[in-house]
Amino acid sequence: MSSSLQDMRFLIHEVFDFAGHYQALAAANPGKFDDMLDGAFIDAVLEEGARFSEQALAPINRSGDEHGCRLEAGEVKTPDGFKEAYATYIELGWAGLIGDPKYGGQGLPESLSLFLEDLMCCANMAWTMYPGLSRGAINALDAHGNDLQKAAFLPKLLTGAWTGTMCLTEPHAGSDVGLAKTRAKAGPDGTYAITGTKIFISAGEHDMAENIVHLVLARTPDAPAGTKGISMFVVPKFDLDGSRNGVTCGSIENKMGIHGNATCVLHFDEATGYLVGEENQGMRYMFTMMNAARLVVGLQGVCLAQAALRSSMAYARERLQMRALKGPVAPEKPADPIIVHPDVRRMLLTQRAIAEGGRALIYFTGQTADRFLHGPAEDRVRAGELLDFLTPIVKGMLTELGFESVNEAVQVYGGHGFIRETGVEQHVRDVRITLIYEGTTQIQALDLLGRKILMTQGKGLLIFLEEVHRVVETLREPLPELAGALAETADEWGRLTLELGTSAQQDLDVLGAAAVDYLFYSGYATLAYCWARVAEVAWKAQQRHRRDSAEDDPFLAGKLATARFYFSRLLPRKAFHKQVIEAGPDALVSVSDDALSAL
Amino acid sequence: MSSSLQDMRFLIHEVFDFAGHYQALAAANPGKFDDMLDGAFIDAVLEEGARFSEQALAPINRSGDEHGCRLEAGEVKTPDGFKEAYATYIELGWAGLIGDPKYGGQGLPESLSLFLEDLMCCANMAWTMYPGLSRGAINALDAHGNDLQKAAFLPKLLTGAWTGTMCLTEPHAGSDVGLAKTRAKAGPDGTYAITGTKIFISAGEHDMAENIVHLVLARTPDAPAGTKGISMFVVPKFDLDGSRNGVTCGSIENKMGIHGNATCVLHFDEATGYLVGEENQGMRYMFTMMNAARLVVGLQGVCLAQAALRSSMAYARERLQMRALKGPVAPEKPADPIIVHPDVRRMLLTQRAIAEGGRALIYFTGQTADRFLHGPAEDRVRAGELLDFLTPIVKGMLTELGFESVNEAVQVYGGHGFIRETGVEQHVRDVRITLIYEGTTQIQALDLLGRKILMTQGKGLLIFLEEVHRVVETLREPLPELAGALAETADEWGRLTLELGTSAQQDLDVLGAAAVDYLFYSGYATLAYCWARVAEVAWKAQQRHRRDSAEDDPFLAGKLATARFYFSRLLPRKAFHKQVIEAGPDALVSVSDDALSAL
Repeated sequence: MSSSLQDMRFLIHEVFDFAGHYQALAAANPGKFDDMLDGAFIDAVLEEGARFSEQALAPINRSGDEHGCRLEAGEVKTPDGFKEAYATYIELGWAGLIGDPKYGGQGLPESLSLFLEDLMCCANMAWTMYPGLSRGAINALDAHGNDLQKAAFLPKLLTGAWTGTMCLTEPHAGSDVGLAKTRAKAGPDGTYAITGTKIFISAGEHDMAENIVHLVLARTPDAPAGTKGISMFVVPKFDLDGSRNGVTCGSIENKMGIHGNATCVLHFDEATGYLVGEENQGMRYMFTMMNAARLVVGLQGVCLAQAALRSSMAYARERLQMRALKGPVAPEKPADPIIVHPDVRRMLLTQRAIAEGGRALIYFTGQTADRFLHGPAEDRVRAGELLDFLTPIVKGMLTELGFESVNEAVQVYGGHGFIRETGVEQHVRDVRITLIYEGTTQIQALDLLGRKILMTQGKGLLIFLEEVHRVVETLREPLPELAGALAETADEWGRLTLELGTSAQQDLDVLGAAAVDYLFYSGYATLAYCWARVAEVAWKAQQRHRRDSAEDDPFLAGKLATARFYFSRLLPRKAFHKQVIEAGPDALVSVSDDALSAL
Repeated sequence: MSSSLQDMRFLIHEVFDFAGHYQALAAANPGKFDDMLDGAFIDAVLEEGARFSEQALAPINRSGDEHGCRLEAGEVKTPDGFKEAYATYIELGWAGLIGDPKYGGQGLPESLSLFLEDLMCCANMAWTMYPGLSRGAINALDAHGNDLQKAAFLPKLLTGAWTGTMCLTEPHAGSDVGLAKTRAKAGPDGTYAITGTKIFISAGEHDMAENIVHLVLARTPDAPAGTKGISMFVVPKFDLDGSRNGVTCGSIENKMGIHGNATCVLHFDEATGYLVGEENQGMRYMFTMMNAARLVVGLQGVCLAQAALRSSMAYARERLQMRALKGPVAPEKPADPIIVHPDVRRMLLTQRAIAEGGRALIYFTGQTADRFLHGPAEDRVRAGELLDFLTPIVKGMLTELGFESVNEAVQVYGGHGFIRETGVEQHVRDVRITLIYEGTTQIQALDLLGRKILMTQGKGLLIFLEEVHRVVETLREPLPELAGALAETADEWGRLTLELGTSAQQDLDVLGAAAVDYLFYSGYATLAYCWARVAEVAWKAQQRHRRDSAEDDPFLAGKLATARFYFSRLLPRKAFHKQVIEAGPDALVSVSDDALSAL
């Protein structure tokens, strides 16, 4: 697999003008962002990231899946090569790309770390999760830790010598974090004794770093019930005096995919913990980690779709089976390459529409996150509202479509796709978790419709629709059909939201029954916006190219073809979701539990 | 997992009246089918089959997945317990359920073996494939072998002492069987020397039977190119004189799922083969095996959906997470069972609609197969045309929906669904192959639209539509909404087919681009027919039940609710497929290969 630098550069430079965007951030933050953050700098990061991903991560992706992690006497051994690749990652200085310079970070904008994550995750999702989890811990400490905690933990996390985790889930508390029972008892010295069991802790124990910094949700003795009584604690594996803390890995999960990442059961037995921020504010702090993590999970969906696309595209050009229905295309060969068959093309274009459109959405959202965190003051609130709105769409939709996409890749491979050697079935197994962790698709859907639409009167959507209408105008002349379809989609989306919002406020079952379909509807509409932006830029670039060349540029032609495919073959799915939303909750809620489960 | 006997009995007795059906077969075949083939006999088979499946097969399903098959010095060791379960299966006399009594079979109708296969595959798909493959070999020899071949192979296959395989695929010849290169050289004694390599041979080598009878497609020296030059040979692992024949297992595949079944690379090195029927007629004979096998693969999709449904339904009633949006349903517990959440109900109902509707379609098709093979002479042609039409729908649609269904089960489990211990992720890995083997979804789609619609002027569809209209009439009074939707679907399906047929004949790209969506459209329409039949019977039974009871019967209420769910929430998907079909092939074929693959 070679990295998709051409697509990345096209999006970063041509479509979203990240160099200009970084200049705007620098202007808004005198002294904070280096003037050097220009196109050449971005390209240098991309190239070095691609080299590292291809040379260090891709070669240990399948072996990591085959061998997995092993728990031996409480210690987790990661697969061969994982430790070495992590050492290289540290050497390259990437652990501190976005951290606070005061503690050794490079202080660069978040989006830049997203590009790096994109390259690495396309090559090896399981490995990339180890440093990925650290960033969540860094963000949480940075935002909510006190100066002593920052000084104690951030420097080591930012060099990468230590890694981080998020410890939320317990056996009986998954989506419902408020059911967590882990206890935190205040001691006389201001520390807390943490006791309880956490499960599904990614990178919870491993042999790649000197120390692991757990951010743990727990409950103080008098805390109110539910989410209002959750506090956040830092619990290092080795305490600050170097002594082993009371946190141990009881087992690692034997799971469907991401075998290279250790998913741990962690037992906390009066482990020393340091309260982050205030008591009972843990849920709020958790969302600092969670929202960034959700963006990354959406990116994982896109990355595996990318990896499977590149692999199945190459196979479709090589593999010879049957003749084109209209007659031989390669008469000199025993059969035609399967790329000639219309349905194989449909599967390839579906993958492109998802993998490339999804990447565009991730980059657009990353840019929005930069604006929220570092933009001019007058822009931040608006960017934050847009970011809040986009986050569940990115997480929910891009993982669902990512799963669809990698399955199309398996199908292109036929029987060979079912064999582990080919590598595509691993993508299916790896990506499956993205629809679940950091909040299932169902949780994202309730977040979108409940919190982001109903509770804000659709503020984020309205901001986004303005942006959509702006793009419609710029498209009207070059690509009137796409402009028309996008405008129609935007209007319909607005009307649908208004009607749904009204009826959902009267009947909460309407909300619960419509949420997932509303997420999908919104996802298709959002991707239509992304493909419209891509198409506009590709169209203009193709016009420029034609001035000097008799032949169209194939990269740009492919982009335009995929945009047209998206509008004619994938966007129409929204009609089904609209119809189901409008059908209401009756089919789901009018049946009794006993009848529903009488199998 | 307990078997779904209630659902099976409801379909077999109430909906499809198999006892009456068997009486009609017996009447048409004096002396052939026993009068004893009544409802009580069917129930006895179901009960014994359920007991065997639950006691012998279910317990070795997950361990079979964990340990898989091992190749040691050319011999395949199946997972612990597989051999013993197979010995029990033989003892119970099931290997010869449907075979010719002349060679030791019990001569029962095919559908009865389908019920048994249903029970066994719900418990353990990988195991069930071993005897399943034998039935293909039995059918092929029975239909096309000469008397000597029948006498030599059938008795041992029908006791189960020997098993069979189908050897079609080669490294460069998958969907395109005509590319097969395996050679067959006639010897002076009338036997052939078979040389070549076959891959993806399920049950190609194992330790469960004394001998393995391979049905091999190969090419004689002067055979014409392509599918017209393919002949079929029987190649036993041990030749009839007991000597080891020249067929060896070179390796077994390491694959995504069905680990308990050995998927073999078989090397034929001048192995002794016996020509089946005539030279160059192998493709035709192959379809004797293939069509029955495709029905079984559709059943596999349904079975894994069934298994995952039962497991996730139980979990949804137990697992406590969050409160119902409208307020606590189980205030005495720390949270409500997740079955209260509308989207969890949607996932459960989706699974029911697929697993139970799919089973109805399988049984209806099995009944049609019985009529084709054993019905009154005047009915056979018509039944055969209907069967030809239904087969690609059963295979293509029920595997695609089966995959969707098991993934919904994983989603109901949340994070626990990704852990192997729970068992649902195994269903995803196991079922994935059903979309590929015995002809991919794409191949089924081309078969349906090309061969079964265009080449016959839609004969099978017209027969089926008559049947649909008959059901519409019986539904008009009890369930007018369903009747209306079904009638509308039938009319639209007919029009769509006519329009598509006309344009596809003018442009073969239309055919290639529309085929998969036409398969899905047809699949949704066919399942609507099945759910209508189920709903009609359930409605009448509920009316009867109400005469004696104040409360509705939950099983019947669940059936009616699932039927309504199907019509309001799944059937509407057909509109999307119609729209895409009508959009034509442009979006797929107007882009050049170079632009399509310029990533």
